[in-house]
Amino acid sequence: MHIFVINSGSSSLKYQLFRWPQEQPLARGLVERIGLPDGQLTHTTLQPDGQEHTERHTLPIPDHRTGLEQAMRLLTDPATGVLQNPANVQLVGHRAVHGGEEFRQPTLVTPEVKARIRELFPLAPLHNPANLLGMEVAEQLFPQARQVAVFDTAFHSTLPPHAYRFALPEELYTRHGLRAYGFHGTSHQFVSRETLRYLGQPDARVITVHLGNGCSMAATVAGRAVDTSMGFGPMNGLVMGTRAGDTDQAVIFHLVEQLGYSLDDVKNLLNKESGMLGLTGHSDMRDITRLLNEGDPRARLAYDLYAHRIKKYLGSFLAVLNGADAVVFTGGVGENDALVRQLVCANLDFLGIQLDETENARRAPGIRDLSAAGSRVQVLVVPTNEELEIARLCAAVSLTA
Amino acid sequence: MHIFVINSGSSSLKYQLFRWPQEQPLARGLVERIGLPDGQLTHTTLQPDGQEHTERHTLPIPDHRTGLEQAMRLLTDPATGVLQNPANVQLVGHRAVHGGEEFRQPTLVTPEVKARIRELFPLAPLHNPANLLGMEVAEQLFPQARQVAVFDTAFHSTLPPHAYRFALPEELYTRHGLRAYGFHGTSHQFVSRETLRYLGQPDARVITVHLGNGCSMAATVAGRAVDTSMGFGPMNGLVMGTRAGDTDQAVIFHLVEQLGYSLDDVKNLLNKESGMLGLTGHSDMRDITRLLNEGDPRARLAYDLYAHRIKKYLGSFLAVLNGADAVVFTGGVGENDALVRQLVCANLDFLGIQLDETENARRAPGIRDLSAAGSRVQVLVVPTNEELEIARLCAAVSLTA
Ligand SMILES: Nc1ncnc2c1ncn2[C@@H]1O[C@H](COP(=O)(O)OP(=O)(O)O)[C@@H](O)[C@H]1O
Ligand SMILES: Nc1ncnc2c1ncn2[C@@H]1O[C@H](COP(=O)(O)OP(=O)(O)O)[C@@H](O)[C@H]1O
Repeated sequence: MHIFVINSGSSSLKYQLFRWPQEQPLARGLVERIGLPDGQLTHTTLQPDGQEHTERHTLPIPDHRTGLEQAMRLLTDPATGVLQNPANVQLVGHRAVHGGEEFRQPTLVTPEVKARIRELFPLAPLHNPANLLGMEVAEQLFPQARQVAVFDTAFHSTLPPHAYRFALPEELYTRHGLRAYGFHGTSHQFVSRETLRYLGQPDARVITVHLGNGCSMAATVAGRAVDTSMGFGPMNGLVMGTRAGDTDQAVIFHLVEQLGYSLDDVKNLLNKESGMLGLTGHSDMRDITRLLNEGDPRARLAYDLYAHRIKKYLGSFLAVLNGADAVVFTGGVGENDALVRQLVCANLDFLGIQLDETENARRAPGIRDLSAAGSRVQVLVVPTNEELEIARLCAAVSLTA
Repeated sequence: MHIFVINSGSSSLKYQLFRWPQEQPLARGLVERIGLPDGQLTHTTLQPDGQEHTERHTLPIPDHRTGLEQAMRLLTDPATGVLQNPANVQLVGHRAVHGGEEFRQPTLVTPEVKARIRELFPLAPLHNPANLLGMEVAEQLFPQARQVAVFDTAFHSTLPPHAYRFALPEELYTRHGLRAYGFHGTSHQFVSRETLRYLGQPDARVITVHLGNGCSMAATVAGRAVDTSMGFGPMNGLVMGTRAGDTDQAVIFHLVEQLGYSLDDVKNLLNKESGMLGLTGHSDMRDITRLLNEGDPRARLAYDLYAHRIKKYLGSFLAVLNGADAVVFTGGVGENDALVRQLVCANLDFLGIQLDETENARRAPGIRDLSAAGSRVQVLVVPTNEELEIARLCAAVSLTA
């Protein structure tokens, strides 16, 4: 059978098609600028020999439905397509950002589940509506398939109260759901479990460091989350591409009261104009690396800030876990940027972390051990694969449902 | 000679009188509810044999000047006063909350300095005006004395940029001063330097944990700050009596957009109705201890949250410093609450911290070592004395000015 995975955002949509149970990716793609006149569709077909063929199309994509239809056209193209018949897709897996306290497991999409996801809109006003839209479009395009929602927050549902509660009046939690939910759960789950398998230690304490455009960390024991750097929304914690991560509530009051910002301006600033972009003018780490190599002092500061923040969360999670068996870097930056890993791990031998600088500097695919001999904590790179994890979770739900 | 120390807040004023250079406290007091019909003056006279005599007065105290005049009346009372003549006060030390990036040292108060403190009002709209008022009243009451301002932020002026900068657009720092300043500097300075003396190790790495009504931590090397839990204002970081400490910026947007709070409501909530008060209905730790002993589950959660936050900052500062020679508890809670210290230090042996439970549970005055044999990091209690530190700093400025 085939599993189709959809990650539907407000103006973009990512998808991936797997042959199952072989876990074999057949194609993946990205629809961008939905609703704008110059929509973009990037579609990649994967050959069994590892070869990739990518095509790019610019065309009007008025809505998510059109976007998915265009993707299906390429997937089922008689000459170049990898899917003979849409009816071969028996499972569609959806990334859903916010499952509140209710959705702790991947869940079969039913009318009731959709109604509950709608009730959670206030907790994720940007993400959940787009996720729901993706489910509704997919129901039309794959009427024969089962739809499964995989929640970003679910992995963190095992956090203990002292980690997820804020020091706010109790009623704001009990009546209004103000607590830390955590995000990037699918990645942290995939990476922490791959790590347990790699270590051959099912009970290991693993700290996962997900560094992509969004960045977050999780402290895990035996593959279960016990703490995370992200809170109520996906904007605090680590420094990210365009998000500030941790600042100070007083900054928000100052921007409004003293500098004349509206609250919307502030939200936009903290989400879209801050982070590495705010510090250097670039959000893509490769651009910042280039600036750094040209000797740009802003790029230097940005790297230092980015790494310092990770180092601090690393220390705090080592305290939470009373040590760790492994620290694992993942995501575009975590897997590829040796300098970030080096700055984070520098001068941590007191805490049992020692990096092998040569191994760290080498580029290689797959899971890698970067620790120096004698490091009490193993330092690993484990490539993440959120789409594969979603497909696996879907397949498991489908078996038990 | 005598040194008079003033800590002037918006509706309250603390003072202490020292005989110098003996560092001998003669009297201290607190004026509360300034501007309200039922002002309160609590005045304590200290005998050389350690005996204390406290008197309480309820009377109208329309303004700070009246408050200080009432205190002077008691200090110079022919029968019970400890100060024969106000002219014997040759130095007045003022706690000043916000010195911006400019005031890195205790500073003689001149018309220019007052003008600069006024220019810093936007950075500390509640505190700096009250501090300046205290200086102006003191100039009238002690026209012969030198006035010295000791800034709460000054101790943290040694933080490196990667610790004090936020991941915000550069201009918000360069033009508008948005950065972490740090607070409780006088306490962290006093305690870290007492610790160096106690250890006999002038270069030691010391983590100071100040737990009073306000709470903050500092990472120090050789008595210089390199990181702190407080940022742009004195509300983030640790859980405090009525302040939430770290939450998530998204909480603020949610309260306003979804729950109808005004931004002023939010500020009030985070500063005055959160922290231990929000969780338990009480801000005084002794009340919460009582609830806990009665088996109250809210008090249990509040303690767990309070300690978990400290533990996380402790881990992060151990990462920043690559270990520590000592962790030092101070302030009303840090000096007296054995359970907080126990919860914070539990399960930290991987990071080199082991508490001697018996020693921790014992009550005793002065500097105390609570570490178990074999603890790589010493765990100490060092009582803070912010007024004495201000007096010392004043005396030093006066000698060099
Ligand atoms: N070779 C590389 N060196 C440094 N950074 C890289 C490299 N390759 C990718 N990245 C960075 O990874 C980030 C995107 O990560 P990714 O995990 O793909 O993001 P997403 O959060 O969208 O899943 C970008 O900032 C990109 O610059
Ligand atoms: N014996 C004690 N046990 C627990 N907490 C105590 C004890 N004594 C004082 N405290 C707490 O110390 C806090 C005040 O600390 P203090 O350092 O005096 O505050 P400030 O920040 O105003 O200087 C209060 O919460 C009080 O309950």
